Amino acid sequence: MLNIRVIHGPNLNLLSIREPEVYGTLTLEQINERITAHAQEIGVHVEISQFNSEGEIISALHEARDWADAVIINPGAYTHYSLAIRDAIAAIRVPTIEVHLSNIYRREHFRHRSVTAAECLGQISGFGPESYILALDAAKKMLQTQE
Amino acid sequence: MLNIRVIHGPNLNLLSIREPEVYGTLTLEQINERITAHAQEIGVHVEISQFNSEGEIISALHEARDWADAVIINPGAYTHYSLAIRDAIAAIRVPTIEVHLSNIYRREHFRHRSVTAAECLGQISGFGPESYILALDAAKKMLQTQE
Amino acid sequence: MLNIRVIHGPNLNLLSIREPEVYGTLTLEQINERITAHAQEIGVHVEISQFNSEGEIISALHEARDWADAVIINPGAYTHYSLAIRDAIAAIRVPTIEVHLSNIYRREHFRHRSVTAAECLGQISGFGPESYILALDAAKKMLQTQE
Amino acid sequence: MLNIRVIHGPNLNLLSIREPEVYGTLTLEQINERITAHAQEIGVHVEISQFNSEGEIISALHEARDWADAVIINPGAYTHYSLAIRDAIAAIRVPTIEVHLSNIYRREHFRHRSVTAAECLGQISGFGPESYILALDAAKKMLQTQE
Amino acid sequence: MLNIRVIHGPNLNLLSIREPEVYGTLTLEQINERITAHAQEIGVHVEISQFNSEGEIISALHEARDWADAVIINPGAYTHYSLAIRDAIAAIRVPTIEVHLSNIYRREHFRHRSVTAAECLGQISGFGPESYILALDAAKKMLQTQE
Amino acid sequence: MLNIRVIHGPNLNLLSIREPEVYGTLTLEQINERITAHAQEIGVHVEISQFNSEGEIISALHEARDWADAVIINPGAYTHYSLAIRDAIAAIRVPTIEVHLSNIYRREHFRHRSVTAAECLGQISGFGPESYILALDAAKKMLQTQE
Amino acid sequence: MLNIRVIHGPNLNLLSIREPEVYGTLTLEQINERITAHAQEIGVHVEISQFNSEGEIISALHEARDWADAVIINPGAYTHYSLAIRDAIAAIRVPTIEVHLSNIYRREHFRHRSVTAAECLGQISGFGPESYILALDAAKKMLQTQE
Amino acid sequence: MLNIRVIHGPNLNLLSIREPEVYGTLTLEQINERITAHAQEIGVHVEISQFNSEGEIISALHEARDWADAVIINPGAYTHYSLAIRDAIAAIRVPTIEVHLSNIYRREHFRHRSVTAAECLGQISGFGPESYILALDAAKKMLQTQE
Amino acid sequence: MLNIRVIHGPNLNLLSIREPEVYGTLTLEQINERITAHAQEIGVHVEISQFNSEGEIISALHEARDWADAVIINPGAYTHYSLAIRDAIAAIRVPTIEVHLSNIYRREHFRHRSVTAAECLGQISGFGPESYILALDAAKKMLQTQE
Amino acid sequence: MLNIRVIHGPNLNLLSIREPEVYGTLTLEQINERITAHAQEIGVHVEISQFNSEGEIISALHEARDWADAVIINPGAYTHYSLAIRDAIAAIRVPTIEVHLSNIYRREHFRHRSVTAAECLGQISGFGPESYILALDAAKKMLQTQE
Amino acid sequence: MLNIRVIHGPNLNLLSIREPEVYGTLTLEQINERITAHAQEIGVHVEISQFNSEGEIISALHEARDWADAVIINPGAYTHYSLAIRDAIAAIRVPTIEVHLSNIYRREHFRHRSVTAAECLGQISGFGPESYILALDAAKKMLQTQE
Amino acid sequence: MLNIRVIHGPNLNLLSIREPEVYGTLTLEQINERITAHAQEIGVHVEISQFNSEGEIISALHEARDWADAVIINPGAYTHYSLAIRDAIAAIRVPTIEVHLSNIYRREHFRHRSVTAAECLGQISGFGPESYILALDAAKKMLQTQE
Repeated sequence: MLNIRVIHGPNLNLLSIREPEVYGTLTLEQINERITAHAQEIGVHVEISQFNSEGEIISALHEARDWADAVIINPGAYTHYSLAIRDAIAAIRVPTIEVHLSNIYRREHFRHRSVTAAECLGQISGFGPESYILALDAAKKMLQTQE
Repeated sequence: MLNIRVIHGPNLNLLSIREPEVYGTLTLEQINERITAHAQEIGVHVEISQFNSEGEIISALHEARDWADAVIINPGAYTHYSLAIRDAIAAIRVPTIEVHLSNIYRREHFRHRSVTAAECLGQISGFGPESYILALDAAKKMLQTQE
Repeated sequence: MLNIRVIHGPNLNLLSIREPEVYGTLTLEQINERITAHAQEIGVHVEISQFNSEGEIISALHEARDWADAVIINPGAYTHYSLAIRDAIAAIRVPTIEVHLSNIYRREHFRHRSVTAAECLGQISGFGPESYILALDAAKKMLQTQE
Repeated sequence: MLNIRVIHGPNLNLLSIREPEVYGTLTLEQINERITAHAQEIGVHVEISQFNSEGEIISALHEARDWADAVIINPGAYTHYSLAIRDAIAAIRVPTIEVHLSNIYRREHFRHRSVTAAECLGQISGFGPESYILALDAAKKMLQTQE
Repeated sequence: MLNIRVIHGPNLNLLSIREPEVYGTLTLEQINERITAHAQEIGVHVEISQFNSEGEIISALHEARDWADAVIINPGAYTHYSLAIRDAIAAIRVPTIEVHLSNIYRREHFRHRSVTAAECLGQISGFGPESYILALDAAKKMLQTQE
Repeated sequence: MLNIRVIHGPNLNLLSIREPEVYGTLTLEQINERITAHAQEIGVHVEISQFNSEGEIISALHEARDWADAVIINPGAYTHYSLAIRDAIAAIRVPTIEVHLSNIYRREHFRHRSVTAAECLGQISGFGPESYILALDAAKKMLQTQE
Repeated sequence: MLNIRVIHGPNLNLLSIREPEVYGTLTLEQINERITAHAQEIGVHVEISQFNSEGEIISALHEARDWADAVIINPGAYTHYSLAIRDAIAAIRVPTIEVHLSNIYRREHFRHRSVTAAECLGQISGFGPESYILALDAAKKMLQTQE
Repeated sequence: MLNIRVIHGPNLNLLSIREPEVYGTLTLEQINERITAHAQEIGVHVEISQFNSEGEIISALHEARDWADAVIINPGAYTHYSLAIRDAIAAIRVPTIEVHLSNIYRREHFRHRSVTAAECLGQISGFGPESYILALDAAKKMLQTQE
Repeated sequence: MLNIRVIHGPNLNLLSIREPEVYGTLTLEQINERITAHAQEIGVHVEISQFNSEGEIISALHEARDWADAVIINPGAYTHYSLAIRDAIAAIRVPTIEVHLSNIYRREHFRHRSVTAAECLGQISGFGPESYILALDAAKKMLQTQE
Repeated sequence: MLNIRVIHGPNLNLLSIREPEVYGTLTLEQINERITAHAQEIGVHVEISQFNSEGEIISALHEARDWADAVIINPGAYTHYSLAIRDAIAAIRVPTIEVHLSNIYRREHFRHRSVTAAECLGQISGFGPESYILALDAAKKMLQTQE
Repeated sequence: MLNIRVIHGPNLNLLSIREPEVYGTLTLEQINERITAHAQEIGVHVEISQFNSEGEIISALHEARDWADAVIINPGAYTHYSLAIRDAIAAIRVPTIEVHLSNIYRREHFRHRSVTAAECLGQISGFGPESYILALDAAKKMLQTQE
Repeated sequence: MLNIRVIHGPNLNLLSIREPEVYGTLTLEQINERITAHAQEIGVHVEISQFNSEGEIISALHEARDWADAVIINPGAYTHYSLAIRDAIAAIRVPTIEVHLSNIYRREHFRHRSVTAAECLGQISGFGPESYILALDAAKKMLQTQE
């Protein structure tokens, strides 16, 4: 059975409160339920956490190295400047998929640039909570292809 | 039944010949068969074409306005400078998903920027031919959500 | 009698459908009727076409070289990057006026720059369909001045 | 009857002396006569002034707020950096048209940028004194459209 | 009674030691006493903390969402690059005032830019510890105005 | 008794008329009454003027050198490019506080940069008319500290 | 016998008419005769075409993949922005030589940059029609070297 | 006898008060006496003024056109952005020499750029009041050369 | 006896796993043993820690202020953007040496810039684990020089 | 008989040793023999030198002014920054051809720019030692054309 | 008696040959005679040399340290990039005046920037050979002032 | 026994005279004695030279190729722009260490960038003359590691 680590970055705990016209009306709990349900359907084990701190995200990535077959990460605002998270993704050598709820190209100019995506397998952005579901499917398919 | 227009941009007809270490060893025909098969599985009608010309892509987008529920487009190199394709996507008001075989952030610097994505619903990049399959799923889910 | 070539660039065939709050509610056909009527009033012959393709616009400019006394062109999104259209305008040596329906300075940053205007006689932007009418008057006046 | 304020910016009082190959051989007085004559023809009242000082232009714009239906302004070199004139145009909320004798895109690089045009209805440049005549026609047409 | 959260960013615990010619000779404890005394005078309740970690500041902002009527924050060096703190300020929708001891425009070039201020109500910088006192007054006045 | 010079820059005479959603609905006269009343309360003498001309502002700054203990200036759009006002502030060596009604970081990109603030004691922006009141308090406090 | 594809880009059909002081007085037909004659002399078969459209150039490059031993291309203005032509050159893996009539470094700033040359074997510019003749010789020599 | 117009720009009336370590301890009156004395020695008539307003400098330049053989100007801070003064220098076609008391390259970055010098005969900076004396000598020599 | 604080930044705990061709095959434990052994040889006491979090590094620097004679820091990816760590180094006023395992100039462009080095005594990069040994020697020599 | 000066720039004496995968396996002596042999074949006299010093290259260019009909120069790394060599090429007014062994567009970003080519007749790059042979042919043809 | 070192930079030995419309028709020998004659008139000893090599100029500056009271240098094209000459001027601490025959602001963009002037006393440009004469006068005056 | 070439770049012969507050009070001779003494201690043979000329440094690097096991170079100001020295370091394939007396990050902005370091083994900066001593130790250690 595949093991997948799901990491939500800073401020995602405020979903449904923060700019609902951009991020939707679901809470993070509801999204996590949706992720867990879909994981069960496709026979995948997931562990999900949310962190505000750059250092905690790095440590979570390091720890995933020991057991996870893939990582799904939404680095939030760190996407645009955290070279340390980028290095962590590169260091652990676990296939990683970057996910965004909103289409980052539709927003402020400084959100168009991702410094973390260069070390990921791929990026999925703009489909709201479905971005995570698609990433689960993508992770499963890509891992099966590699076998 | 949902109708989806799939548009491959310039040079994609050379897949399997052009840099297979980047783009994979499948031909465009094989990818199209994969897309058609998956579309049937999920009950969606697709029409697929490949164009080298910016003008032809714009015209194909205009024509899709009359019958398509969604567009899946891989604008190839036009991704990075075709404001005219961007305007066409905006003009037809059909939900559009941008797709890339490779992770554009892993390649040359000039490929990190997408001028077309800003008018799309979302973007999926880096999963090889599976990028299209994920886009089909995404299109179906997003259209169902809007109903 | 003066002969004037009017060229509409990409996506202008979708007028009245595309962002009517920016481009107005008239169709391209209605604008063309307005142009033709005004041309008759001021005793000028016009030939009008719309093209989505950069190459077709270049060829139309070349062909105008043989019979047109002036060109009125709305290069649409090509305004901002088509050095090839710029070269075509320079090459044919027919006085050319650049026209825009909307005020390009009021829109996204990348629309503030025109690479084609440098080879034109002048530029008129922001008056909706009246931009073309003003350009006809301008063309007539400038040609009379040169005699 | 429509009332239109025409404002000439710095150095325009030297027309016919300053670089005649760029600006033409007419004096400002001759251009003003041409403007006045055309205004009479189309049934419009104009008041015309020239100012070298940024502050005087701002005051003239403020004063126009009380009686003018439209403003036609050639901000001269202030076009490229006077944020204060830009604010004045925005503040008075009178429809304003920016005019240039020469094609600003054909000249030095720093003249390609207009900071004032963003608050104007539109911009007409490159037709010599006829730029003002076209602006009068444009003003009349646009005001009639708004009724 | 109004409740105000005061957040001191990284390195502010070293006040009076770090470059006293720039930041003054008062310790953070003395400044906090000054803040508390003034808060009492104007009938406002304050809670004050200092954090070196970006993640802790984000969490403190989230927690303030439940009880604070306003936030006064001195993000220290994070002012210049923490898009994650910017997002946190935007997300909690509590009126926030950015404060700096020194005039950030008088220091190194990279300190002239604030990425966090865009989501704040206003900014006060350059008055030493009095910047906090003025921010308290400002918070009180702005909240009264909104009632 | 302290003497303070208050200088309003260009277009501020149009307050309540110009973009009230940004600048509020008070007229400059009402703001000046508010300033004068608060000055009396805290025992400070103020002289207030508004100028549209860059040159007049410079002269007013020069003249303040002879009698004022502090200057409060809202340079309006000159904030962003008037190196001459910057020099005047530096030359008179009277402590000067820069004030803005709106939060300059929340507005157009070119308003994020202040060329004048570098020569000021500090900057207060974003509190509407209260920005001036806070500046009066700041001026009084800072002058007392220096004694 | 070697087979070489010669591709002239946009506006080159207007040679002898367009800026003869830059591009010389020979027509494209005369240059093509010169190329054909020299090809015969050195025992090489050439096929020559001119295209205004980016898409046609890409298709011509693709088609050359099946039979040509080398490509000589003058991409005209597309040299400076067509990433799609660049990709086509890379994809076909046929040795390609970029040619320019004029020295691109002697002209406008935007003509100093070539986005296509990076995927070519080499570049020859500035020798008028002789640039093509030198490219034929270069192609023959380089292909012989590789055997 | 040669007639020379000497124009001092903004803030120069404060010489000896403003940053004496940069500009020296002489007052403008003392410098003017030095200029007048040297002019007499070399047989040249001078008229000297100081202006704070950009508009007044432009008018003074215009007026000099009627009688002056050369202009010596220290545009002060306007040096770095006043395109209107640049245009005035170009318009009057009187040989003009730009003068600075301090070495503009030794000061803040924004003072390294001169927008006015491009229309001057030459530039002399860094010699304190002697800059003006050298400019007088230069003007005399250059005018004699032209005869 | 000298006391030296050694701080390893983010991801350095993964040494020997992360890109061994860049960072070498030694684990962090082995490097720490090497450091401790050399410290004993030259009679220096060291305390060594590794942190992933920016805030922890700042706190560790603050704490070193009380007992350390020098700091040796490898800020990892934080080197390139952490102004907060830069401020911490400046604040504690303990001589600090920046160390890198790899030559930062040989790697991606964004790794060429150090924002932290400006507040350090010096920088040693490119010698693998020996960078730390050289830094120990450097610290000892520089401290002896200062006595 | 035509006289041609061939100048090899810095580090070219190390050919066959330095990055043979980029520059080929021939020594400079072997390339010079190839050049001399071809010169004899086409009836041209050549003088060939290699210099590491910018000043020596300038002096060699000056000296060529007295006897050479053309110059063939490979300025090596000076291509990218030596404005002094550029000036020397312009000053001697001898037709000069710039040559590179490798395709400069295929290498590091800083090698894409040539500051010297703007003063040359043309540029040939990417054909290894054949670049020099093609330049000899080009020189002969261009000089014959000019007669 | 004052001793002054005059240094002419690269390509100045070609004066009267190189672009006489820019640099005049005098040879360097004639200019040197003019300099020597004027030096005698004002009682100053001069030593004059011309160098093409950056290193020779640096050595000449070093050597001047032992006997010269001032240096007059025309660094030619090195003006725009030689940080090594800049350092030499700074190191010798002999007052240095930068001289240019032409007005560097009137020429190509890359000639507007001087990296050497920042370490000079002042700069004189645009007066042809008179620039040197003015510099002699300036040197004499400045040295007398310092006594 | 290891052979090491030590190269001092331009202006280093003026040490103790040039800005002693930056570079220290030792002369180059004293530093060289320190280097020689330490080399003897650690059993290494050194040859030391100082050059002002870029070409001489390149030639010295070439010559070191025949006998030196390592190079220690302080390229002085050439560090920031000499691509030719960079190429020489790359060409000789002798392990090279870049050394600076001062911390280049603490000085002017243009000194933060090293174009030569990318081809070196490592860089040591900021320890005054000890930078050379540390480089000797580093060279010895790195060479021993490679055996």
